[in-house]
Amino acid sequence: MLNVLEMMNIIGIISFTISGTSKGVKKELDLFGTIVLGIATSYAGGIVADLLVGVIPPTILRQWQLLLLSISVSITTFFYYKQLNRKFLALVLKVSDAIGLATFAAYGADLAYSHGFSLVTVAMISSIVASGGGVLRDILVNDIPLILTKEIYATAALGGGIVYYLVASISNQGYATLITIFTVVTIRIFAIKYNLHLPVIKAEVGNR
Amino acid sequence: MLNVLEMMNIIGIISFTISGTSKGVKKELDLFGTIVLGIATSYAGGIVADLLVGVIPPTILRQWQLLLLSISVSITTFFYYKQLNRKFLALVLKVSDAIGLATFAAYGADLAYSHGFSLVTVAMISSIVASGGGVLRDILVNDIPLILTKEIYATAALGGGIVYYLVASISNQGYATLITIFTVVTIRIFAIKYNLHLPVIKAEVGNR
Amino acid sequence: MLNVLEMMNIIGIISFTISGTSKGVKKELDLFGTIVLGIATSYAGGIVADLLVGVIPPTILRQWQLLLLSISVSITTFFYYKQLNRKFLALVLKVSDAIGLATFAAYGADLAYSHGFSLVTVAMISSIVASGGGVLRDILVNDIPLILTKEIYATAALGGGIVYYLVASISNQGYATLITIFTVVTIRIFAIKYNLHLPVIKAEVGNR
Repeated sequence: MLNVLEMMNIIGIISFTISGTSKGVKKELDLFGTIVLGIATSYAGGIVADLLVGVIPPTILRQWQLLLLSISVSITTFFYYKQLNRKFLALVLKVSDAIGLATFAAYGADLAYSHGFSLVTVAMISSIVASGGGVLRDILVNDIPLILTKEIYATAALGGGIVYYLVASISNQGYATLITIFTVVTIRIFAIKYNLHLPVIKAEVGNR
Repeated sequence: MLNVLEMMNIIGIISFTISGTSKGVKKELDLFGTIVLGIATSYAGGIVADLLVGVIPPTILRQWQLLLLSISVSITTFFYYKQLNRKFLALVLKVSDAIGLATFAAYGADLAYSHGFSLVTVAMISSIVASGGGVLRDILVNDIPLILTKEIYATAALGGGIVYYLVASISNQGYATLITIFTVVTIRIFAIKYNLHLPVIKAEVGNR
Repeated sequence: MLNVLEMMNIIGIISFTISGTSKGVKKELDLFGTIVLGIATSYAGGIVADLLVGVIPPTILRQWQLLLLSISVSITTFFYYKQLNRKFLALVLKVSDAIGLATFAAYGADLAYSHGFSLVTVAMISSIVASGGGVLRDILVNDIPLILTKEIYATAALGGGIVYYLVASISNQGYATLITIFTVVTIRIFAIKYNLHLPVIKAEVGNR
């Protein structure tokens, strides 16, 4: 039977594969390119997580099931993409990205917590692991990563890591995982919905 | 005497140094910039390989001979570049990239196999290690990586890793290495020659 | 009391946070984006250093003080930025980058030396650790990294690593650190001031 960590990993992989594939189609990559982008987006978090806590080789590189899963999801997304209209697609990209962020925040927090790390370490690893996939996806296609342009992105994952640690300390890791995912998704939806604006310094400086 | 792993490393470093340097000259970097790009392209695979299998610090960071080799090849390439015509240069870039991909696929597979990892892990590490150099090279100069735009790039390395594992299991690692390199180069040449096209979804979606 | 390694880390973090934040403001990121860019720029070196020498999890992920420090410096820089004129800002960016480079070169060298690695390994790790922050900063906002376009950047850090090793061998690590920082900053200032030009191959090849 799957444990919570494995389930988070699977949901995260599906979400980020959809997100990576959607981005690839938008950038007019061919089928191979979109599959590679889907895999890269969905694998980055797990690989970084394991390197940071010292699991060598990273778990995700040992399971052919996850590779098959990512490839299948990517191909399916690729061929369905055409039939969807733009507005719905933008929604798919946002939602899959938010769920990927939330599940990998929980995954990273769960892994770090299980290794006995402190609150700060758990929160930092949670944030890095959750952001990793999206950052790699955007860098690979030459976009400035969401993490820099979107309101409360890495911060949502950092918050998720803190919530995880606190809940896990007073309750158990199963509850902590669920509440973390709920928290991160809620923060992201709230941020997107109200399109939270933060100050931008425009200036005499700008045009260089 | 050099063993097979070290020889793969050397050929891979030479190939990827040439490939990185050529890219640098195309992008009109100065001598220092092209050398740095040559080193980055040729070192990425080895560093990633060792981090993924837990060799700390990475072997390549311990050998000044390899650094001197990469610098010499880079300088030579830089100054010869001018005298070559464009068509020949495009060929040099393609061939050096293909050989680099193939030797690092074999290097990654050999390293992972020697650590006793399973078929899937060997194939995945082979693919990541082989792709690493080219991805870093292209990201550093703001190009979308070959891995996303070229037919059967990371897939060729993945195929190479599978071939390696199977041949090594029934024969020995020396044969496995040679056959892997031959396989990956052949796949790449075939892919380039017939310019394999895979479906691209163009759509109402495209222009965002 | 702080040891030398921790002090280097703190100065490096402050410098690279200022450098990352300045870049973020120039690119018109909002407050969150600039803070994230400041943290990413200032954390990259320490994380890479620890991964390369096998300190798991990286030290920097265990100290909330450093996170608070980076965030505070970033916010301060963000709000002061507006009041500064362009010329002064360009200077701030150059100086903070040079100090960040120098302190992380010393940090990487110190860490590698303390783990008993050889001259070559110390110099290579020094160079990678020092360059890491600036490379990540520039990649994240789609600029071609300084390491490729600026005279003697990674080379200055490599030189710093060599100086560190030699001085530490005949004297002690405290002196080695100070002399390394002095050396790297001097090389960078000299390179910027005299705007050292190295050959660029422009060619029939160029316009592709």
